[in-house]
Amino acid sequence: MSKKLEEYVVTIPDFPEPGIMFRDITSVIQDPDGLKLAVDGLANLVKDTDFDLIVGPESRGFIFGVPVAYLTGKGFIPVRKKGKLPRETVSQKYDLEYGQAEVEIHVDAIKPGQKVVIVDDLIATGGSAEAAVKLVEQLGGKVVKMIFVMELAGLKGREKLKDYDVESLIVYEGK
Amino acid sequence: MSKKLEEYVVTIPDFPEPGIMFRDITSVIQDPDGLKLAVDGLANLVKDTDFDLIVGPESRGFIFGVPVAYLTGKGFIPVRKKGKLPRETVSQKYDLEYGQAEVEIHVDAIKPGQKVVIVDDLIATGGSAEAAVKLVEQLGGKVVKMIFVMELAGLKGREKLKDYDVESLIVYEGK
Repeated sequence: MSKKLEEYVVTIPDFPEPGIMFRDITSVIQDPDGLKLAVDGLANLVKDTDFDLIVGPESRGFIFGVPVAYLTGKGFIPVRKKGKLPRETVSQKYDLEYGQAEVEIHVDAIKPGQKVVIVDDLIATGGSAEAAVKLVEQLGGKVVKMIFVMELAGLKGREKLKDYDVESLIVYEGK
Repeated sequence: MSKKLEEYVVTIPDFPEPGIMFRDITSVIQDPDGLKLAVDGLANLVKDTDFDLIVGPESRGFIFGVPVAYLTGKGFIPVRKKGKLPRETVSQKYDLEYGQAEVEIHVDAIKPGQKVVIVDDLIATGGSAEAAVKLVEQLGGKVVKMIFVMELAGLKGREKLKDYDVESLIVYEGK
């Protein structure tokens, strides 16, 4: 297994819109070695972190968050688009390039004072990550770390999350 | 860890519509023991199966399919709603109670002759599972097993998939 994680990422120009360089993680996870590098890499980022729960946003946050929860012996809490969670929720709106999105989390998912790690595939502008943070904090949880497979540094998500401990396995300098 | 997997499932009456008994898996995975029981249980269902890849439908198929792929040392192939996969795809329509849905898979995800296990949280009518089978078969793959956390036996998904090896960790007799 001498290939590096970043070599499994396929870049697709102009998807989903002209001008966007889409960094595809399906090419990482469809290879057993790529999947293992990504999951083990994320688990390694929290090996010295004291935490209680993993939170991951729909749907690529599920891909990486669940195996990290399994490996670290924690529960996994999904953040979902509005209307998909069946029990009582709290919700949070955030801005997209055009319009707004709204996401939810179950109110019984996090107890006040619990320490949370947020996992997702990508940090770009940080909007969806910030919404996940706000959901955790609405329930009295504390975000102790945020980990990502990839970071688009040019979109400055890290500035939006400057009060948090953010780490990524791969950092792309552009957008 | 003496609690059984089915004890972690919360049933919500009348969600998302009146008359539906919704079987919630978020209550399973938010508990580390529930998550481990589900993932280990699924991995155990394929311990004697010779296969190459795990395929899981968006988005709850990701929750269970990815850790099973990781544990068994296989790649994970997502089935996604139309328009979300960035590379070349094949697609498949299937009937919902009202209207149709369309799902896709990357054409390079499965090579002809590869043996595939399909993983999802729930088999109900079997419509989305059958669509996943057809995507695999469009690419020349062979579905050697289909595994689910829960089965609603009254909806007879197993009849729709009678040519396949279907196993579930929990079987509910009703709908």
